[in-house]
This record gives sequence, C-alpha cells and structure tokens, in this order.
Amino acid sequence: MTQSRSEREVEFGRIVAFSDGVMAIAITLLVLNVSVPDLPAGREDELTRALLRRWPDLLSYALSFAVVGRFWLVHHRFFGTLERFDARLLVLNLLFLGLIALVPFTTEVLDSYGTEPAAPILYALSLGLAGLANWAMVDHAIRRDLVRPEARAATLPYARGQGLLPFIIFAASMPIALVSPTAAELSWVLIFVVVVLRRRTRRGPASSSTRRPL
Amino acid sequence: MTQSRSEREVEFGRIVAFSDGVMAIAITLLVLNVSVPDLPAGREDELTRALLRRWPDLLSYALSFAVVGRFWLVHHRFFGTLERFDARLLVLNLLFLGLIALVPFTTEVLDSYGTEPAAPILYALSLGLAGLANWAMVDHAIRRDLVRPEARAATLPYARGQGLLPFIIFAASMPIALVSPTAAELSWVLIFVVVVLRRRTRRGPASSSTRRPL
Amino acid sequence: MTQSRSEREVEFGRIVAFSDGVMAIAITLLVLNVSVPDLPAGREDELTRALLRRWPDLLSYALSFAVVGRFWLVHHRFFGTLERFDARLLVLNLLFLGLIALVPFTTEVLDSYGTEPAAPILYALSLGLAGLANWAMVDHAIRRDLVRPEARAATLPYARGQGLLPFIIFAASMPIALVSPTAAELSWVLIFVVVVLRRRTRRGPASSSTRRPL
Amino acid sequence: MTQSRSEREVEFGRIVAFSDGVMAIAITLLVLNVSVPDLPAGREDELTRALLRRWPDLLSYALSFAVVGRFWLVHHRFFGTLERFDARLLVLNLLFLGLIALVPFTTEVLDSYGTEPAAPILYALSLGLAGLANWAMVDHAIRRDLVRPEARAATLPYARGQGLLPFIIFAASMPIALVSPTAAELSWVLIFVVVVLRRRTRRGPASSSTRRPL
Repeated sequence: MTQSRSEREVEFGRIVAFSDGVMAIAITLLVLNVSVPDLPAGREDELTRALLRRWPDLLSYALSFAVVGRFWLVHHRFFGTLERFDARLLVLNLLFLGLIALVPFTTEVLDSYGTEPAAPILYALSLGLAGLANWAMVDHAIRRDLVRPEARAATLPYARGQGLLPFIIFAASMPIALVSPTAAELSWVLIFVVVVLRRRTRRGPASSSTRRPL
Repeated sequence: MTQSRSEREVEFGRIVAFSDGVMAIAITLLVLNVSVPDLPAGREDELTRALLRRWPDLLSYALSFAVVGRFWLVHHRFFGTLERFDARLLVLNLLFLGLIALVPFTTEVLDSYGTEPAAPILYALSLGLAGLANWAMVDHAIRRDLVRPEARAATLPYARGQGLLPFIIFAASMPIALVSPTAAELSWVLIFVVVVLRRRTRRGPASSSTRRPL
Repeated sequence: MTQSRSEREVEFGRIVAFSDGVMAIAITLLVLNVSVPDLPAGREDELTRALLRRWPDLLSYALSFAVVGRFWLVHHRFFGTLERFDARLLVLNLLFLGLIALVPFTTEVLDSYGTEPAAPILYALSLGLAGLANWAMVDHAIRRDLVRPEARAATLPYARGQGLLPFIIFAASMPIALVSPTAAELSWVLIFVVVVLRRRTRRGPASSSTRRPL
Repeated sequence: MTQSRSEREVEFGRIVAFSDGVMAIAITLLVLNVSVPDLPAGREDELTRALLRRWPDLLSYALSFAVVGRFWLVHHRFFGTLERFDARLLVLNLLFLGLIALVPFTTEVLDSYGTEPAAPILYALSLGLAGLANWAMVDHAIRRDLVRPEARAATLPYARGQGLLPFIIFAASMPIALVSPTAAELSWVLIFVVVVLRRRTRRGPASSSTRRPL
C-alpha cells in the first residue's frame, strides 16, 4: 500500500542525476553574484582597490559554495544507502532542491545588504529549511525501511537528530542576527567545525570504520 | 520502415541525460527571476519590508518549480517504460524540452505583470503546449508499440486521455484569465490536487500495485 | 604512434556527458534572450501587444533550439559509432562545443539587429564553423579507423561530404545576407527540409534499414 | 584510520558527474561575457564595426574555454586512475571546482579591464590556485595510495612536479603583468605550447605507449 517503487521502475539513477544537475547549476550560478567593478572612464587605475573591496562578495561565494558542497556530499551518501524510495521521498527531494536552488538569490541579498538583520535571516531561513528537508528525507527513509539493512546502523544517528545540526545552527543564528548580523554569519562556520571535530573523534580507539555517519 | 532504433543505437541513456540537463537547468534558472531589492542608500533598513513584498516572486518560483518537477517525474516514468524509440519521438521530445526551457521567461512575465490577463495566458499557453507534447509522446509510443509489453497496461490510461489533464487545466485557465488573472493562477493548483486525489483512490481495495499510471 | 586510447582509459562516457552538459546549457540559456517587456507604470494593459511584438525573439529561440538540437542528435549518433578516440578528436570536440556555446550570443545579436547583414552573417559564421568542426570529427574518425567496423558503411557518406551540408548552407547564406538578411535567415530552414527529404527517400524500396546515415 | 572509501560507498561516478556539471556550466556561462553591442537607434549600420571591436571578448572567451577544457581533460584522466578516494580528496576537489566556477567572473574582469595589471593578476591568481589544487589532488592520491597500481607509474611524473606547470606559468605571469598586462596574457599560451611539445617528444623512438602522463 506504500507507494514504494523498485530501483528499476522510476530509475533511481535519474533522480540522482537530476539532483546533481540542480545542485551543480545552483553552485555555479553563484559566480553571477560576484559583480565586476564598474569604473568610470579614466579611473581604471582604481581597479586593484575596487577588486579588493569585493572581498565580502568572495567570502559569501566561498561560504555558499561550501554549504551547498556539504549538502551535496550528505545527499549523495544518503542516496547511496537507499534500497528503494516512495512518492513522499521524491516530493521531499524536490522541496530540498527548490530550497538549494534559491541559494544564488539569498547569497546575493547577503552580498548587497550584509549589515542588515533581514539578509542573514533570509539566508539562514532558506538553508535551515533545506537542512530540515534533508533530515526529513533520512528520517522518512528510516521509518519506512527504505534504507539497505547493512547501512541502517550507520544512518540511524543522522535520523535520530545528528542530521538536524545544520537546521539548528541556522535557526539559532536567526535571533543572533537581530543583535549582530556579523555574529550570525560567523556562527554558520560552526557547521564545518562540527564536521571536522566529529571526524577527529571517530578516529579515536573506540571508533569503528564500519560505523560511518552521514 | 518505421525509423525505430534499438536502445544501443542512438544510445537511449543520452536522450534521457540531455532531457534531464535541460529540465534541471530550466528549473534552476528560475531563481534569476527572484530579484534582489534595490534600495536607495540610507534606506537599507527597509530591507525586511522589501523582501516580504517579494512573496509573489517566491510563489511563482514555487509554482514553476513544482510544475517542472511534476513534468520531469512524468517524463522519467514514461521513458522508463520505453523499449525503443523512433525519430518522431525524438522530435516531440525536443519540442517538449523547448517549451519547458521557456518557463524562466513565462515565469518572469507572470512575476512582473501577474494582474494582466496576458501574463497567465502566456504561461498557460506554453505549459499547456508542453503538456500536449508530453501526451503526444505517450500516445505515439503506444500506437507504434515502443512501450515494453509488461508496461503497456499501466501506460494506456495516460495515452487514453488521463495524460491530457495538464493540457486541459491550462487551456481552461486561459478564458478564466480574461475575467480574473488570479482565479486562473489558482486553478493551476488543480493539477497537484488531482495527482494527490488519484493516488488516494488507488490505495483503495480495488487498486492493484501493478497498475501504476504515469 | 597515434594517440588513440581505449574506451576505458579516458572514459568515453564522460566526454559524452560533458558534451551533453555544454549543449544542454547552451540550449537552455537561449531563454535569457527572450526579454520580458519593460512597460512604464500605468501602461501595463499594453502587455498583450508588447508580447506579440516579441515574435521575432520566439522565432529565433525556436530556430536556435532546433539547430542545436539537430547538432546534438548528429553528435550522439556519431559518438555511438566510435570504438576509440584520439587526442585530435577531443580537441575538435572542444572546438565544436566552444562554437555551440556561442549560440546564445549570436542568437541575441540576431534578435537585436535581425535586419542588419552583420547579424545573420555572424550567426551563419559561428554555426557554419560548428558544422565544419562536426564534419571534421567524422572525417578524422573515418581516416584514423576510430569507427566500429560494422558502423563504417553507414558513417562513410557523412564523412564523404553529406556531413558538410550545414556548413555549405550556412556559408551560402552569408553573401545572401548582404543583399537580404531575411532571405539568409529563411535559407537556414533548408537544413531541416533536407533532413526530412532524405528520410523520405530512404523509405523507398531501394533503402535498407541497416544503412543509416548520420 | 584513513577516511578512504570504496568506490561503491560514496559512489565514485557521482563525484565525477557533479564535477563535470560544474565545469560544463562554468565553460558555458562564459558566453554571457560576450556582450551584444548596444547601438543607438539610427546607428544600426555600425553593427559590423561594433562586432569586430568585440574581438578581445572573443579572444578571452576562447582562452578561458581552452583553459577550462584543458583542466577538465586532466581532471578526467586523473579520476580515471583512481581506485578509491578519501575525505581530503573530496575537499580538494570542491576547492578546485570553486576556483574553476570563478572563471566567468575573472574572464569578465579581463574583458573589461584587460590593459590594467590587476585584471590579468586576478585571472592568473584564481587559475594558478586551481592548478595548484589540481596538483595537490594528484600528489595526495599518490601519497595515500589511492591510485590503481598499474596507473601509478604514469601518474607519478605529474605528482612529482610536471603537474605544477600551469601553476608555475600563471604565477610567473603575475609579476610580468605589473610591467605589461599584454605580455602576461600572451605568456598563458605557453601552457598549450608545452602540452603540444610534450606530446611530440613522446612520439619519438624512446617513448612507450604505456607511459601516458596526465
């Protein structure tokens, strides 16, 4: 009665290819936000200074590239654990992609109005929701037994709440932005700090190479 | 005498990959229509209000993302049932893709002039024709026996008229738009309502998991 | 001594995927040329007329979509016949893709200045060269024995000159454009007329299904 | 203890597909920099001259297309030699892609301010770093034994320093740009000259077809 479909039916690989396409395009469109300085004739010698003043553009480019890159990585590891999928997973995936495809827009708002609270709040809202959609996919897959049995143990901690980390960090940064937009933007770096820390811990003696979280 | 070609010849997978590429790019280019507010210097504190006023942009972004996402889903299920294809199917597919690739344009017209009848009429015209091209592919595939025998029963209702639903809804919304553009835009939601209702019905006792319509 | 490489080495499929990507993006970027009317406030009721005046934009969109679509089709059929490839084929392919990726630019020039001879000449020049690069790939593949033996007979007529047809039509249209830009633009339709006529002839009693030209 | 993962786990093919996507989009977005002349009404007959004055745009389009095309080629040959990969390789790959995706921006700066030293310095900086990231991937793969044993000998010279060539040429061009931006831009052609020369040498009697450098 569940709408689950075998890998062969709706052709698993194509869902991944479509998702890859959307994420690769969203990540590459980010460059359109790094605007070329528009110097008046006769003032071209100010190009160096004008380019150096572009560093916030490049910083937010790097941030969004890293965030989308990280989401892509998690998306792929997760889809690698799936045995089958159902209609709800496809809808959640489209929702996730629709939020990721907004990143060039939210990044441009951040570029243009980084010192206004509304800019980091919008950024955190769309990417926090993307994180939530991502976690909802994993949670749904665990509940409906869509994950391959041997990958279940590794996927479980992510569904249990670890996967909510990006959502929590982005959500927490929203009230911070009301006080200090810069502090909110800096707090997002925590996502990558946690990933690195978690990897370190796993290398300790108690860790096992077979228990690989997403 | 028919120009049918085996899967190996023109390489089936590449047609799908190309179609996926065009649809993924069209869906991601939609973000270029969500324009960043252009506030005069000293009025940056109006960003929140300016962003909130962008809700029709986000609504039409969500609508177009959902419509293209739905077309992509149907496209893939259909190509998953094909055994072989002929020249006419390739031409119909290019026609379909050419109409889908117009969506960023028609969405932008809808964003800019949503209260003028011409905007929803253009939108409904291009996507109605995309729906028609999509149905024509299925109809042609059934007529020329391009569908795998075991998938024929499941594909038949779509070719018999069920597949014309998006075309009919978009076509019906065109005269409605002359009276009320907003009513026309709301009527498009019917496409998704019908999809959900149809899925519900199939879950009843009479439904069989082997009869999966597109 | 030839730099030919086995299918496994530089991974054939990836060349095709990259080529597909470039062509799919070029074809989808065409939509950015179909510009949304910019009506002054209070004159929104002129939208219908403004959109109808966009028909040359839509016509050149359709033309470029069809031309790139046709090149994509030939590209795929050709790569389907290859057994191996060498460095020169890769360079010719990049050259071909570089010319195809220019289409959004040449189409925009055609949109903006369709009545000036220089616009159709530029369009014909870039696509004529793309046709030449395409033919050069086939010719090179035949000379260096890169084509699978069983596909050689079908590929030969294309390398012998039939494949030069798009180049010849585009080249011939360049002097015509000096007299009448519109006549030059109309002459390009011949490419599709010839494709259809050739297909008709092949259906005659003398044709054989095994001899499938590109 | 190393974070290496089998080909099946994070699904090798998807990393390549994502990388292909980013490079194909970056290379195709280059066309957006070739701007259509904006002639005042009544002066449309100056189109030919205006287009001819666009040759630096077309030259930098061709240069960037060739550079990204060359990087793509090396990227693919390298990924074809990999047996497995680890987390650091994925991060280096994302860094490489982030720098390649900047090419449409750096090319536009070069188009607009080609005679200012800062423009070629920015271009050389971003592509020099891309070359460095590319070499770092190969070096890391050799150190951590990620390369298939039979491909190790062929990959070694690249990791030993040959792979640093694009980085060295771009780095050397940066001080040259301070004296003459044009000389710096011309020096980049050396990358392709060296590739051709190296290929020539390999064709000599001492060369062996099995030792194929990247």
